[in-house]
Order: sequence, then C-alpha cells, then structure tokens
Amino acid sequence: MLPRRLLLPIAPLLSLPSSAASFSSSSSSSSLSTSRPPVALVVGVGDGIGASLCRKYLQESYQVVAVRRSEGGLDELSEELSSDAFHPLSLDARKEEDVDAAFNHALSLGPLSAVVHNIGANIKFPISETTPRKFQKVWELAAFSAYLTGRAAAAHLAPSPPPHSPRSLIYTGATASLRGGSGFAAFAAAKAGVRSLAQSLARELGPSGVHVAHVVVDGAVDTRWVRENFGAAVEKAPEGALVDPGAVADAMWFLHNQPRCAWTHEMDLRPYCEKW
Amino acid sequence: MLPRRLLLPIAPLLSLPSSAASFSSSSSSSSLSTSRPPVALVVGVGDGIGASLCRKYLQESYQVVAVRRSEGGLDELSEELSSDAFHPLSLDARKEEDVDAAFNHALSLGPLSAVVHNIGANIKFPISETTPRKFQKVWELAAFSAYLTGRAAAAHLAPSPPPHSPRSLIYTGATASLRGGSGFAAFAAAKAGVRSLAQSLARELGPSGVHVAHVVVDGAVDTRWVRENFGAAVEKAPEGALVDPGAVADAMWFLHNQPRCAWTHEMDLRPYCEKW
Amino acid sequence: MLPRRLLLPIAPLLSLPSSAASFSSSSSSSSLSTSRPPVALVVGVGDGIGASLCRKYLQESYQVVAVRRSEGGLDELSEELSSDAFHPLSLDARKEEDVDAAFNHALSLGPLSAVVHNIGANIKFPISETTPRKFQKVWELAAFSAYLTGRAAAAHLAPSPPPHSPRSLIYTGATASLRGGSGFAAFAAAKAGVRSLAQSLARELGPSGVHVAHVVVDGAVDTRWVRENFGAAVEKAPEGALVDPGAVADAMWFLHNQPRCAWTHEMDLRPYCEKW
Amino acid sequence: MLPRRLLLPIAPLLSLPSSAASFSSSSSSSSLSTSRPPVALVVGVGDGIGASLCRKYLQESYQVVAVRRSEGGLDELSEELSSDAFHPLSLDARKEEDVDAAFNHALSLGPLSAVVHNIGANIKFPISETTPRKFQKVWELAAFSAYLTGRAAAAHLAPSPPPHSPRSLIYTGATASLRGGSGFAAFAAAKAGVRSLAQSLARELGPSGVHVAHVVVDGAVDTRWVRENFGAAVEKAPEGALVDPGAVADAMWFLHNQPRCAWTHEMDLRPYCEKW
Repeated sequence: MLPRRLLLPIAPLLSLPSSAASFSSSSSSSSLSTSRPPVALVVGVGDGIGASLCRKYLQESYQVVAVRRSEGGLDELSEELSSDAFHPLSLDARKEEDVDAAFNHALSLGPLSAVVHNIGANIKFPISETTPRKFQKVWELAAFSAYLTGRAAAAHLAPSPPPHSPRSLIYTGATASLRGGSGFAAFAAAKAGVRSLAQSLARELGPSGVHVAHVVVDGAVDTRWVRENFGAAVEKAPEGALVDPGAVADAMWFLHNQPRCAWTHEMDLRPYCEKW
Repeated sequence: MLPRRLLLPIAPLLSLPSSAASFSSSSSSSSLSTSRPPVALVVGVGDGIGASLCRKYLQESYQVVAVRRSEGGLDELSEELSSDAFHPLSLDARKEEDVDAAFNHALSLGPLSAVVHNIGANIKFPISETTPRKFQKVWELAAFSAYLTGRAAAAHLAPSPPPHSPRSLIYTGATASLRGGSGFAAFAAAKAGVRSLAQSLARELGPSGVHVAHVVVDGAVDTRWVRENFGAAVEKAPEGALVDPGAVADAMWFLHNQPRCAWTHEMDLRPYCEKW
Repeated sequence: MLPRRLLLPIAPLLSLPSSAASFSSSSSSSSLSTSRPPVALVVGVGDGIGASLCRKYLQESYQVVAVRRSEGGLDELSEELSSDAFHPLSLDARKEEDVDAAFNHALSLGPLSAVVHNIGANIKFPISETTPRKFQKVWELAAFSAYLTGRAAAAHLAPSPPPHSPRSLIYTGATASLRGGSGFAAFAAAKAGVRSLAQSLARELGPSGVHVAHVVVDGAVDTRWVRENFGAAVEKAPEGALVDPGAVADAMWFLHNQPRCAWTHEMDLRPYCEKW
Repeated sequence: MLPRRLLLPIAPLLSLPSSAASFSSSSSSSSLSTSRPPVALVVGVGDGIGASLCRKYLQESYQVVAVRRSEGGLDELSEELSSDAFHPLSLDARKEEDVDAAFNHALSLGPLSAVVHNIGANIKFPISETTPRKFQKVWELAAFSAYLTGRAAAAHLAPSPPPHSPRSLIYTGATASLRGGSGFAAFAAAKAGVRSLAQSLARELGPSGVHVAHVVVDGAVDTRWVRENFGAAVEKAPEGALVDPGAVADAMWFLHNQPRCAWTHEMDLRPYCEKW
C-alpha cells in the first residue's frame, strides 16, 4: 500500500485561491454548496483523544480532516474508520505552510465548523537537563502549533458563517496548563502559553461568533502508550481511573454545540478518583 | 385550586426514619423499588435556571423535587408542568430542618440521583452600607444553604448507589464566585465561599462516586426580573446577550451524565458577546 | 492583678462622638494632635503572627491596640512588651459592638494607620461531621469578624488621612484561602470568603488611599501550639520548615509602607521546603 | 568614548573553565574570595525597573552586572552611576552563549546572589496581524530568554551557597502574565509561559535554597517611553498613577532578603487607582 502522504490531493491544494476567498465564494455560490456537510479539522491525531474526536465527528456526519506528523501514522485509524468522509493528512503543525495546507484541504471539502488543537508534548526533566533545544522543541510542538492553528482558525472560521451553524476552536489542555510543577519547566511553560493564547482568542473572536474553548484534561488518558508504559499501575488502578478519550470527545462535542448565549471557555476533565 | 403547600404529604415526611436508613432499606427491598425512576432535587427554583432544570429533568423522566422559599412561588411552574412527577415544596433552604425535609421528600420518591443548589443573593452595596445584618443574610442565603444542601447530599447521594446511575451535586456560581468586585463585599464573599465548599466536597466525595461540580454563570440570565428591571438594556442588546436558562440546564444535565472517568468540576457559561 | 477586661477605659469610649468625626476633629485641632504617633490595631493576637505584629509596630513607634477574645489571654505578651504604647483588649471580634469598641479605643489614641485581621479557625472534619453549628462558628470566627473589621477600617482609615502616612488593612490568609481541600469544607469556605472580601475592599477603597492586602501564609507557623501538638514532626523537620511569625510581621510591615503607586494586593509566604 | 561593547573583558570570559566549577573553586579557595561582595545580575536593563534595580543593588554594596541588547544602551546609566561596581554588558538574552557570557562575567566578580529577569515585549495586535514571525519573536524575547536565564541561574546560584546569604531568581511579570486579553495572543502566551516557568523553577529549586519569585506589575511603569508616548494621559492622571520603577526595585529587594522560612513566590504591584 502506498504511504498516506502520497495519497494527498496535493495538486488541488496548491491551485486553490486564497482560502478565505475560496470559502466565501463556495458558500455563496449556490444552495448546493451550502448543503454540504460541515467540516471538522483535528490537529494532532494519535490513538487517544484525536482518534475519538474523528470518530465522533464522523458519526455526527461531519467531514473530518485529521492531521498527524508521522507518515503512515493514521493508516490504522483510516482502516478502522473506513469512510470517505475521513481525510488523513501527514503534516507538521509546527510549520506555517503545513497548517495552511490542512486548512485549505478542509475548506475545499465544505464549510469549516470545528477546529481542535490536540497536541501535547509531555516531558519531564530537571531544569539542568532541559536543554535549549528541548525547551524550544516543546514550545514549538505544543505552543507554536497552537498559535498557527488558532490564527488559521480565526481567518477561516470567522468570515462566512453558515447561519446558525456552530464554529468552534477547542484546545486540549493538561494539568500543566494550570500548574508549573517541579520538572515541568518546558512543558508547563508551553501549555500555560497555550491556555493564555486560547483565552486571548476567546475574547477577541467571541463577539464575531467563534467559540474558543480550553479543555483541561487532568489525568492520564487511556491510550496504548499509557498501557504499554504504565501497565502495572494501570492494572492496579480502579476502573475509571484512566480518562476515556471518548469521554473527552463527547465533552468537546458538547462545547461545539453550545448556543452562543452560554459558551464555556474552560472546563476540566478528571477521573473521579484522581488526586488534585 | 388549592395552594401547592397544602398538597404536600407532610405527615409521611415527619414519620420517616432517618433518611439514610430509609433510603438504603427502600433500595434493597425489592426489584420494584429499584425500578423507580431517579429523583432530582433542585434547591432554589424561580423562573430562570431552576425552572429550566425542573423541565429538563422531567423531560428525562426523573421525579423532580423543587424547593422555593415563598408560599405559592411555584404555582405557576406547577401549572405549566402539570405533571405528577413534579413535587414543589415551599421550604427555607437556610434552615436545617427544611433542607432535611426536602431530602426526605426526595428520598421517599425513589433513588436520589441529582441535587442542584441554585441560590444566589446578588446585591451590590458600598461597604459603608453593607450592614452586619445584610452581610449575614447574604451569607445565609447563598452560602449556608449551600452547605446544608451539600451536607445532606453527601449523606444521601453517597451511601447506596444504584449501579451505574449518576449521582451529582451541582452548584450554580456567578461572576462573583471568582472575583471580588467593588461593591460586592457581601455577595462575593458568600459566592467565593460556596465555590470553595464545592471544591472541598468534590475532593472529599469524588472517590466514593459523587460528582460535585460548580458552574460559573458569567452573564445576565434571561429571567422575568431581568427583563422588568433592565428592559431598555435588554432591548438594545444583540440576540444571545442574555444567558438562556435552558442552556444552563442543558450544561448541568451534561455534567450530571459524565462518566466518572472524566468529570468536570468547574465550567463557565457566558454569552459570546460578554466582556470578561 | 485585675483582669485586663476591667482595665478598659469603657466610659470614655461610650462618650466618644461618632468616631470619624472624632478622628477628623482631633487631627485638625492642633499640631499637637497630629504629632501623636500613628496607631496600629491588630485583631486576633495569640503567640504567633499577632504577637509579632505587636512587637513590630511597637518597635516602629506605633501605638498598638491588640484584640484577643479570651480574658487574660494577652497578659503574658503585655508583660513581655512592658510598654505604655501597648493596649490589650479582650474583645470578641465576632460582635459588632466589640469591634466598634476596639476601633474607638484605637481612634482615641491617635491617627489610625494600620489594621490587621489575623483570625483563622483551622479545623478539619469530614462533611458528615461538619455540623451546622461548626460550619457557622467557623464562618463567624474567620469571615464575619473579617467583615466587621473591614467595615470599621473602611470607615475609620479612609476619611482623614494624615498626609503621606500609610493607611492599610491587611488580612492573614492561609492555604485554604486558595484551595478547598478534602475535609476543609467549613474552613476553606470561610477563608475563601475572606479572600474575596479583601479583594472587593481593595477595589473599593484603593482609589481613596486605603491599601487592602491579603497575605497567604502557606505553611505551619512556629507557635507554641504547633510545637506542642506536632512536636515530633517539628523535631524532624529541617531548620526553616516552620514559618517564623516575625517574618510574616516583617512582610506585613513592608506592605504597610509601600508607596501608593505600587501596592501589593496579594502575596504568599511559604517555607522554602514546603510542598505546594 | 569607546562603545561599551569593546570594553568587555571578552578574553577572560572565554578562557573561564565551566562556570560552576569556576564558581565553586573561587568560593572555596580562600577567606579572601568569600569576603568579596555579592553579585547581582539584571537581565534586561532599560531606564525603568532594570535601572532602578541596578541603583538599588549598588546602594546595597553589590557588584551589579547589567545586560541590555543594544550597543551603548547602558552608557547613560553608566555615567549616572559612575561606579566601578557597575558592569554593563551589551548581550542578547535570547542567545545561549550571550546568557552564559553574562553569568560567567558575574561569577568572575564574586558570589552570585541575585538574578533578575526583566524583559517584556508588550505588543498588541489582532490575531490576523500577529504573524508567525511576530509570535516567535515575542516568545524568544520574553520567554526563551527567561528560560535561558533561569537555567543558568539554577546552575550558578544553587551549588555553592555562601552561608546565610540570599540567593534569588526574580521574574518581572505583567498584567498579561495572568490574563489573555483580546489582542494580546502573542504577549500573553509568552508571559503566561514565563509565569509557569517561574512556578516550576520555584518548586524545583526551593528545597535547595534558591528563592524563585514572580512579580506581577499590573500598571504602566513610569519610564521615558511611557511619558513620550502617553504624555497627555500621564498629564491628566493623578499623582501615583504610574508605577515608580524604584518601588518595584524595593519590592524585589525585599523579596531577595526574605528568610527562607517565609518566601513569597508571587506578588502583584499596582497603583492605588488602577482598575483591575
């Protein structure tokens, strides 16, 4: 099978006019175009929250664009989902041109309704081992990608609202978004930055109808990686001690659909037995 | 029509054994009793969030107990709802015996699943006009009633969980829960106290399966009182500038149903155009 | 020796004109009166922070009024200080008339410059053992007394500023001021309330030149009570693990003297080795 | 006069052994070396807070190393201070080698006791005008330099404490450290990141005796730039409406000298008449 990367409709993307123009022209062109299903773009899709978001939005009849950095990293999910409405892209969310490509792809499919930024970079090192390169890499991965996604979302969610359809930009936060713990200088600085970015965008974009939210996941998420690396602890933990990524997706779906008279900017999600 | 107050089954309440005992015996007595629909108790029901909560829980087939202080204050809602599953009580949530009576009534109807404390006391006075009496009254109304409700909820939600059914205690917060604004010494002190109480109860009761949440409503709610007193401002405001109480009820219903692996303790709700 | 209570100049207090009037007349009457040293009033004086504050203000040539509830509770400190400038009062800060008496006494001595509220009520109980009486008592002790002190300070610090002299109202906070821990429903609710009260007063009174601050002491203070009850733990702890009450007094003295162009509203104080 | 840059003792710096080694050897070598006055390093010195810090530490008999990016930018201050104990360096705090050079220079002068990071990058742009380059520049200037400074401070303040002498690392924060306002996506993200970094370092380094603090300056500081750009507003403002940078320096000096049993991690500073 061909690598996913090669399957991307690169050419059409490159020939797109500027995305905002493209979007508004398509949405105004005919009733046909406005009847296309809405599009959700998930930046940062592994086997946890990102994958659950894709499942959720597909189930709700959205076109779903999923971004992951690694080549082939979305193959398994593609096979599972087996849907024409699922559009995996292997792109690097730290690069402006890649983020633009992802948005352009999404805009080519229909009216962009939901954007989720779901990239963490959870590392723990004493400050003496937090090299400049590590500090910068963590920031680029978690925070710069969040900014690039937010800027593009501001441009493409805002201008041409299909009437009454929700338009949201949601960030996945973590414990470190709120607390600078010992050993988390790099990760906490990046995640606190994302939180503040989200707050700023919420205040700036809210009045024009774009709902920006920040979801603080305060607990270990039930992923393959967690089970492989913390298997013993997971075995001993009571049922419900790991955050089901599907529950996070449900919460984000709920936020996406809130009426504009009652938007949530921030909510936490935490297992019932988590210490906090 | 008779005032609702007279329709209350007062005598049975007084003859109830201690409520916890009553609850566990009834829930263990037979399959019949466990098949009774769950009960929601809403403390503080006016024509806004409280009324919407009652509608929501009725619609979801709960038995609903509504508490309001004033005699007859729930007549209009009763007529509107016109349901045997709606149980209005005119009781004073600042009094231990009244709160106990409300819980006993709820427990007599079936398994207690949802408790909401929805009492504010939004007053604004310079400190020089905030008399000891006012300060104390606001605290009793907003905070002491929250404690009484929380203590009873801890006793009655916790011990006998119908398997897999949600058990939640939700507090309605306000802007003043997070911020002590000028002129809000009494109100902000009370609401910040409630927020801290909710946090403490969340940490204490979470591990035993009781979900405690605090919902910060940061905006004016669309009630009769607001429209009567701020009519001009409401006229001029854009659509969606007032919080629809139904949207708050929907958010609380969402919280109530979160799986225990991903509970929210705090979320805000705010109109898209609200300054914050 | 006579109980302290009997030594209070009750009669003069009762015959005072309204305190604000009294204060402004005395301060404008003559150069003699304005040359009187400033007065500090400390509400809540045990052998810890309160006693250190008294020492500090005496050392800085203030007249010091110290309030403690228990009869004779200030005898030992009086003997230690052995100063005519120290004025111990056994009064109950939960009672309006007692707080007024304390302020009137302070105002009779000279221009009121510093007010500190230093009353905690640190108890820990599961919610099931937090009776209504306990919840209310903790609130009265920690929060209602804070309100009464704040209201009187607003009245008596504000109106007649001796030029360029600092006027401050400082609250002693605790870990529970910021966090509702499990088992701290009563204490945390009260202390969070005080924090919000302080914030509200800071915003209301700041523009008229009254500096309101909240000092969060996040650690065990080195008092006789702590050493008696946690002796073993204290023995094992490294030097500096207990907060020296003198260091808290120094911090409050620093706050008191901040120029009005750079006031601190909130600061934390914590031993270097404290987990947080 | 020669540009300051050329006056730097570059050669000695380059020939230094690794700085930690250099520091511990010098401090252990003789009683003579330990009697050298302590050194303060201020990263980010303009005509405001940074300059005031230099004055303060000189006045307290410290050797002071001042870092500013621009060539000649410290000439005026040098002339004013006219002291052999003042060591201006034109270095770029965003560059690892420059930060290391600054620390090496400081270490060559005596025991490093105080480090202050005082770099903001206050810009305001709508997200649509916040280009990737701007976002990154702001982050580098405010946050990456804060990390580089923090990492070096951790290495050089920690290992060889002159007994009982204070060792502190203090960050200057701003309103945006706590709040992501509309239009401040870049600045707020960077400053919130610094705040979280400071918190993380405080938790990591505190137990080894390095005091890390974060001072939130919530108001306009009285600098030449502010007076030139907001002259009209400054004229109309009441006395005390601008933060005197000397008052900030005093607060930081107070923090630097706190005993380790009562350290402040965060404090705000705000004019009495500031809205907040």
